Amino acid sequence: MQYRRLGRAGLQVSELSLGSWVTYHNQVDTKAATEMLAAAFDAGVNFFDNAEVYAQGESEVVMGQAFKALGWNRLDYIVSSKFFWGLARDGVTVNRKDTLNRKYLMQAVDASLKRFQLEHLDLIYCHRPDPHTPIEETVWAMSDIIRQGKALYWGTSEWSAADIRAAWDIAERHHLHKPVVEQPQYHLFHRRRVEQEYARLYDDIGLGLTTWSPLASGLLTGKYRSGIPAGSRAALESMAWLRDNVQDKAKNDAVAKLAEIAAELGCDTAQLAIAWANRNPRVSSVILGASRLEQLKHNLGALAVTPKLTAEVVERIDAITKPLAG
Amino acid sequence: MQYRRLGRAGLQVSELSLGSWVTYHNQVDTKAATEMLAAAFDAGVNFFDNAEVYAQGESEVVMGQAFKALGWNRLDYIVSSKFFWGLARDGVTVNRKDTLNRKYLMQAVDASLKRFQLEHLDLIYCHRPDPHTPIEETVWAMSDIIRQGKALYWGTSEWSAADIRAAWDIAERHHLHKPVVEQPQYHLFHRRRVEQEYARLYDDIGLGLTTWSPLASGLLTGKYRSGIPAGSRAALESMAWLRDNVQDKAKNDAVAKLAEIAAELGCDTAQLAIAWANRNPRVSSVILGASRLEQLKHNLGALAVTPKLTAEVVERIDAITKPLAG
Amino acid sequence: MQYRRLGRAGLQVSELSLGSWVTYHNQVDTKAATEMLAAAFDAGVNFFDNAEVYAQGESEVVMGQAFKALGWNRLDYIVSSKFFWGLARDGVTVNRKDTLNRKYLMQAVDASLKRFQLEHLDLIYCHRPDPHTPIEETVWAMSDIIRQGKALYWGTSEWSAADIRAAWDIAERHHLHKPVVEQPQYHLFHRRRVEQEYARLYDDIGLGLTTWSPLASGLLTGKYRSGIPAGSRAALESMAWLRDNVQDKAKNDAVAKLAEIAAELGCDTAQLAIAWANRNPRVSSVILGASRLEQLKHNLGALAVTPKLTAEVVERIDAITKPLAG
Amino acid sequence: MQYRRLGRAGLQVSELSLGSWVTYHNQVDTKAATEMLAAAFDAGVNFFDNAEVYAQGESEVVMGQAFKALGWNRLDYIVSSKFFWGLARDGVTVNRKDTLNRKYLMQAVDASLKRFQLEHLDLIYCHRPDPHTPIEETVWAMSDIIRQGKALYWGTSEWSAADIRAAWDIAERHHLHKPVVEQPQYHLFHRRRVEQEYARLYDDIGLGLTTWSPLASGLLTGKYRSGIPAGSRAALESMAWLRDNVQDKAKNDAVAKLAEIAAELGCDTAQLAIAWANRNPRVSSVILGASRLEQLKHNLGALAVTPKLTAEVVERIDAITKPLAG
Repeated sequence: MQYRRLGRAGLQVSELSLGSWVTYHNQVDTKAATEMLAAAFDAGVNFFDNAEVYAQGESEVVMGQAFKALGWNRLDYIVSSKFFWGLARDGVTVNRKDTLNRKYLMQAVDASLKRFQLEHLDLIYCHRPDPHTPIEETVWAMSDIIRQGKALYWGTSEWSAADIRAAWDIAERHHLHKPVVEQPQYHLFHRRRVEQEYARLYDDIGLGLTTWSPLASGLLTGKYRSGIPAGSRAALESMAWLRDNVQDKAKNDAVAKLAEIAAELGCDTAQLAIAWANRNPRVSSVILGASRLEQLKHNLGALAVTPKLTAEVVERIDAITKPLAG
Repeated sequence: MQYRRLGRAGLQVSELSLGSWVTYHNQVDTKAATEMLAAAFDAGVNFFDNAEVYAQGESEVVMGQAFKALGWNRLDYIVSSKFFWGLARDGVTVNRKDTLNRKYLMQAVDASLKRFQLEHLDLIYCHRPDPHTPIEETVWAMSDIIRQGKALYWGTSEWSAADIRAAWDIAERHHLHKPVVEQPQYHLFHRRRVEQEYARLYDDIGLGLTTWSPLASGLLTGKYRSGIPAGSRAALESMAWLRDNVQDKAKNDAVAKLAEIAAELGCDTAQLAIAWANRNPRVSSVILGASRLEQLKHNLGALAVTPKLTAEVVERIDAITKPLAG
Repeated sequence: MQYRRLGRAGLQVSELSLGSWVTYHNQVDTKAATEMLAAAFDAGVNFFDNAEVYAQGESEVVMGQAFKALGWNRLDYIVSSKFFWGLARDGVTVNRKDTLNRKYLMQAVDASLKRFQLEHLDLIYCHRPDPHTPIEETVWAMSDIIRQGKALYWGTSEWSAADIRAAWDIAERHHLHKPVVEQPQYHLFHRRRVEQEYARLYDDIGLGLTTWSPLASGLLTGKYRSGIPAGSRAALESMAWLRDNVQDKAKNDAVAKLAEIAAELGCDTAQLAIAWANRNPRVSSVILGASRLEQLKHNLGALAVTPKLTAEVVERIDAITKPLAG
Repeated sequence: MQYRRLGRAGLQVSELSLGSWVTYHNQVDTKAATEMLAAAFDAGVNFFDNAEVYAQGESEVVMGQAFKALGWNRLDYIVSSKFFWGLARDGVTVNRKDTLNRKYLMQAVDASLKRFQLEHLDLIYCHRPDPHTPIEETVWAMSDIIRQGKALYWGTSEWSAADIRAAWDIAERHHLHKPVVEQPQYHLFHRRRVEQEYARLYDDIGLGLTTWSPLASGLLTGKYRSGIPAGSRAALESMAWLRDNVQDKAKNDAVAKLAEIAAELGCDTAQLAIAWANRNPRVSSVILGASRLEQLKHNLGALAVTPKLTAEVVERIDAITKPLAG
């Protein structure tokens, strides 16, 4: 495992990291989470991603209990959480949901720390942009949370380049803590934002990236090539919205072609896809999800694939996937 | 109930809100206050306005006890208080009364939080301008209170446009928290400040408005059309100063004409007046007062009237009231 | 008693105030101090001046015990202390004495609060300039003490106009809390600094003044006109350094002439001298010392004299004293 | 003992000070450390230097226990620690070792305070430059640590002039606490950085110096003139890397010549070398190490030598050593 700086920031994150999306609490209990965190840590993973909204706060509870059980030195792991969606309750949504206003952020981070049983988060993200709150208000709130010692760094997730730059500029002008990282979706079929929209931000403001969905919701594993298998994520009723995309014919055909390249390299398409995201030097860390220990170990195997992605191999991969990519 | 941003700030307040002026403690005990807050909350009200000076601090005590009894999630309600008049005691007034100096503000907010039994206020107002304290001193104090986590946003009440802009400019220059809202009197007979004096502030600095006295001290209910009825507010000895204004002949005649329009719209003049204030998109929230539950429910009925205020209806209302308005 | 703003600051101080220099602990115990504070407070005094160095910290202990016994509302009195001389102990002086460095100031204020048994001081002074510490370091420390809530305002004592302006400019540039007040010596024989050196500061930066030694160490009472009486301050061995000045022949002759004016106004020279300092509108408060209750009451009588100081009377006083004044 | 300002800062440090490098915990236990601290303090030393990395944190534990036993007034001693190398453990190095990122600094200072059993450090150093963390991130972290009251001043150790100036400029621009001191190696054979590279920083930004290794790892004592004596530091296996340098023939010959000058001045070469560093007015304090009480007392004897270093003597010393110096 190698470690990369979070963009220009001095924080070093493992090139592959572990996220708890859709799995913790729902599919993964504290015991299983503890085992997976331990395995990831032993493999060199030091960055663990979470969000308030995952399992409605329960994902943070599970991860916090796992940290407690594992008893690692606090310097050795980086915990993040993300805020925006809020915790829907009794249908109340005002100042609770889809917002980055000061009231929500202040109270949400406090509640998150309690769920985690931690004194600080290393990294907090604005989970989405909020067009209804001035960026200045959000920058002040994030900076004040850092000033209060409740977090160490902050960033954004799925913000436009223009909004990220605006946040950075406001922080520079008002002497506040600046955003250091963006967490975008990034995989073979979704690459325009990372490669084009953000292009100037890497050098201009030193933006780092932690990327999600390296497997395109499972599409890149090839498991949807013959429909929706029972037990897969897309088979869940709550994930029905995924089905159209993961069954896209052209993309599944592309995955079949990728499988040939993967076979040549001695891996499968999941490992190939993770290695491909990891090979981008602008990416600080590729966040993996996992509902089972074997799956996690398998995906960590992508580390061995990255060095095999020569310019020529990447060109072949691009020829297959780029025409289908957003 | 709809929710509006507090000017440019990301905080969402209900278009109608509930204030405790002259009622809590004096006319409304904790039990009645709890019932009214519950009814308002059920109707969608999320903003509850108070002030240190109301019932000499007792209004905050009553509201705080009601919050405790109701046990709402702290994210779901917005509490404000206002500071300037101080708590007269033993005749001592220096640094206690009619001031916005740092000593007063720091100690007054701490005392208010204790009365409310809250850890923070969402919104604090400078209840009036203080010509004897530099605006810079007040801006620093309000900003420091926010920095200390005791409040989340701050604003002014009955300040001139020039003073509001000065406060905003000082905060911008010294990188302090800016005022986001003004709380002016605003009703059919008092509209010049909101509509003319503040006109440039809405876009220039993103000023929001929470407005008070939508019924012009009851004048717009029509109840003073035949003199001061027993049991009305103006019948109270402590409110004797209201009497001249609420008995103004021309204004009461205008109210009689408004009653015809109200009847056409299936409401009374109180609801019409509230709906009129509410229809101004610059107004974030119209603060209602109420001493009885039925009165509150009746006034909340104004929500149904707002959509009926077509341009033509507003023109008729203006023709009747504007010549008499300040 | 009238109240004046502390320069441009919004804090209102009584025009006459009470200081504890050379009296508390040494001549005045807690019981007597409590009586004098009560009498002063009853007469309208709301500002009580102290310093770390007075009686080596014991003056703060005595005053703190008196406050505790009196139980006033914290809004109703203003407590100041001053820092620079330090508490000599075992001959150690480095970073303890004659300094305004960050280490000294931070620890000295904490220790002072403990001695006072208070949570905050209203006003802290740099008791003298420290040529061996950059003004920037001192401004940062004073401002940080205010940011931490341990004090509300800060000022200087016996600083040059140039140093005061430098401190103000640094605070403006770095967005720190600015000094609002200077505490100079000011009496009929010592007036150049207040009247000439500081002249531009009153309007330029809004400087306020609290002045000390209105009686020129007793010289202006006339008690040294026939030598050093037993029991007077100058008779104390520790105050031997005062003797030359208080026995100055020309000045004592002038005091004799002032006595005639005082007699015309129905007062004595002590009251006349206090009234003269008080009549300067640039002076926020004249700090009185007192070792006995009667003396305090007598000196507070100066309040009745101030209105009698017509332009013509002041001219006569100036003719007598100005040629001898520094 | 004389005291000097830490560059332009107001903090006064003793011209000779005591560091715990390679001795505490390993060669010096708490009892011996307490004796040496007491002796140094009695001789006027008020500055005690330490670092997280010395004896892997145990050096801070030992010094903290000694402070506790000695019970000095906190104003009378200055404690420093240095951060960068981290505490290697289980081979984990990411965000723990060789870094000045925010996560490391925040947690390292907290842990150091616990080991010392102190509420604040007077002075914290960045022990080395970290090319993998932006200087801006480090400046913010150091400044925030000071803002939180955990330290009073900060500086660097072995940073380039360009990096020191960059840190100072960032702090000035963003209104943060500035670095005030650098801790470089400085002795007769290593002087270029202090005398040339930093030359402009003394006046431009007021940089102070606390210097280490005045005896060039013992070379300047002359004890390595005939090889590595048993029991010397260079005889330790863990210090084998020192051997080439301390056995350098030309330098040992130069030390032999210095011995003649030392004899003329009534001292030995160790005292001469310390006095030579001490004579540089840019040096705030020369940090001495000592593993035995007698050695400490002997080296403090250098104080008597400094006044004997006339221009003519210094010229003779330079003639011998400067050609060999880096």
